[in-house]
Amino acid sequence: MQDGPIFRRLAIIGLGLIGSSVARSVRRHGLADRVVGYDQSEAVRREAAPLAIVNAVAETLPAAVDGADAVMLCTPLSAYASIATVIGPRLARGTVVTDVGSVKGCALRDVVPRLPAGVPFVAGHPIAGTEKQGPSAGFAGLFEGRWCILTPEPDTDRDALELVARLWRGMGSMVQEMPVEHHDMVLAITSHLPHLIAYCIVDTATDLADDIKAEVIKFSASGFRDFTRIAASDPVMWRDIFLNNREAVLQIMQRFNEDLTALQRAIRRGEADTLERVFTRTRDIRRGVVEARQA
Amino acid sequence: MQDGPIFRRLAIIGLGLIGSSVARSVRRHGLADRVVGYDQSEAVRREAAPLAIVNAVAETLPAAVDGADAVMLCTPLSAYASIATVIGPRLARGTVVTDVGSVKGCALRDVVPRLPAGVPFVAGHPIAGTEKQGPSAGFAGLFEGRWCILTPEPDTDRDALELVARLWRGMGSMVQEMPVEHHDMVLAITSHLPHLIAYCIVDTATDLADDIKAEVIKFSASGFRDFTRIAASDPVMWRDIFLNNREAVLQIMQRFNEDLTALQRAIRRGEADTLERVFTRTRDIRRGVVEARQA
Repeated sequence: MQDGPIFRRLAIIGLGLIGSSVARSVRRHGLADRVVGYDQSEAVRREAAPLAIVNAVAETLPAAVDGADAVMLCTPLSAYASIATVIGPRLARGTVVTDVGSVKGCALRDVVPRLPAGVPFVAGHPIAGTEKQGPSAGFAGLFEGRWCILTPEPDTDRDALELVARLWRGMGSMVQEMPVEHHDMVLAITSHLPHLIAYCIVDTATDLADDIKAEVIKFSASGFRDFTRIAASDPVMWRDIFLNNREAVLQIMQRFNEDLTALQRAIRRGEADTLERVFTRTRDIRRGVVEARQA
Repeated sequence: MQDGPIFRRLAIIGLGLIGSSVARSVRRHGLADRVVGYDQSEAVRREAAPLAIVNAVAETLPAAVDGADAVMLCTPLSAYASIATVIGPRLARGTVVTDVGSVKGCALRDVVPRLPAGVPFVAGHPIAGTEKQGPSAGFAGLFEGRWCILTPEPDTDRDALELVARLWRGMGSMVQEMPVEHHDMVLAITSHLPHLIAYCIVDTATDLADDIKAEVIKFSASGFRDFTRIAASDPVMWRDIFLNNREAVLQIMQRFNEDLTALQRAIRRGEADTLERVFTRTRDIRRGVVEARQA
């Protein structure tokens, strides 16, 4: 469905799970003539090079973006400002800058003011991933059938927006536009709070006496193991998400805490009806997830 | 590895996911000459009969257990006392009674006093399951490679214990004995708290405005959907678990709440180091789960 490449030279900054998956998918679908990758970690660059997922691994950030007509940031959020500071002055007019970060308010805040006039930024977020990390963990099909959210501002360049949307569609994703604040609230609920809870429950188990801990691991198939998988996600990436989506996360945590306290009280008081009612009504949401083919 | 049947006639009371899986597995492995099933729900009995997972579906509880040399309770915990009251007087000396319930203290409390002398009870708990329910959801391989915990008391009949252990090994499980209080605490951590948290986070989403809720479902692949799967588990079964393992669940919830409050505080204060440290140390547990082949 894609005729010809969308970009001449796409620079991917950050070659972890997402960046390396974008590289693989863009090349499989012929969406760019040339894909250049860069990662600030020398170990990651050494790991990426023999995988041949990009046409070239650049040794420096400037070398990665020089001559690029598209740059995609695939690093933790805390790196955005310094990357934008370095690359901003080097980018030719019309170069499209985009990203894949999980919080969009801070992406706009940290990148847009550091780009010169005529270099548009399109904030994006593919709703796809695994708990694995690094260039070897990526795969070309990661985005197929998954949503990619773009959060344009009123003054976002519409041509750049359309190019980025075409790039994601070319990788097999469905694209949806959304206001930035709305994105950050929806993701606080669907992604940030679940990850925080999973990290927390596994951390609670970490504090147990060694004999109990060994058995918690042994018998983890009873529910706990699903949380350990989520809590194996990249610590730096998640640190940055919570620091940069603080208000939305704290707001939804407040509601969660209220609901958990109510359940705790129902257990303490032996309120069978309350428990059964809550455990029954949660099924509607599951039904919705299954019907939306996101299960 | 199993030579010949262990029981002549096994009665399975409750033909949901677990009961129907036991029936399938016992028959596949020839562990009983005859398997008779019963469920108090007529709809479940009607669903089970044409599946031919048992030799016969009994229409009454007495008819199910008459002539049985083994009875396995696979119902919600709240049904145990009334079932034991009905079947106790009908069971021949030497009949082995066992169960698959997720809390063992209440199983012993509700069953043992209602069985006549010479009818031993062996409390068991297979660490296996899915979020699906009903006889059609079961499958013969559910217990293969999974643990089954048995919680004998000092006065539990050792021959009966060995027969039940052989039954589970015959179904492909690994068997471990454990004190009953220890089981109920380990499972509060590995299973009961995770399920409560999952129910709670999905319930928090249930309360959202409809437009946000639709998008939470749409973009659930970002973490939330794993919780919706767990929160789709049987409401009555889980109501009974929380009512019957109250002390252990409330105790571990207390620790979880403390840890969650600390994380909330770290987010509010922007404590990057705290967040990264917690998100990093949780990986050890995941590594343990993967190494224990429970991932």
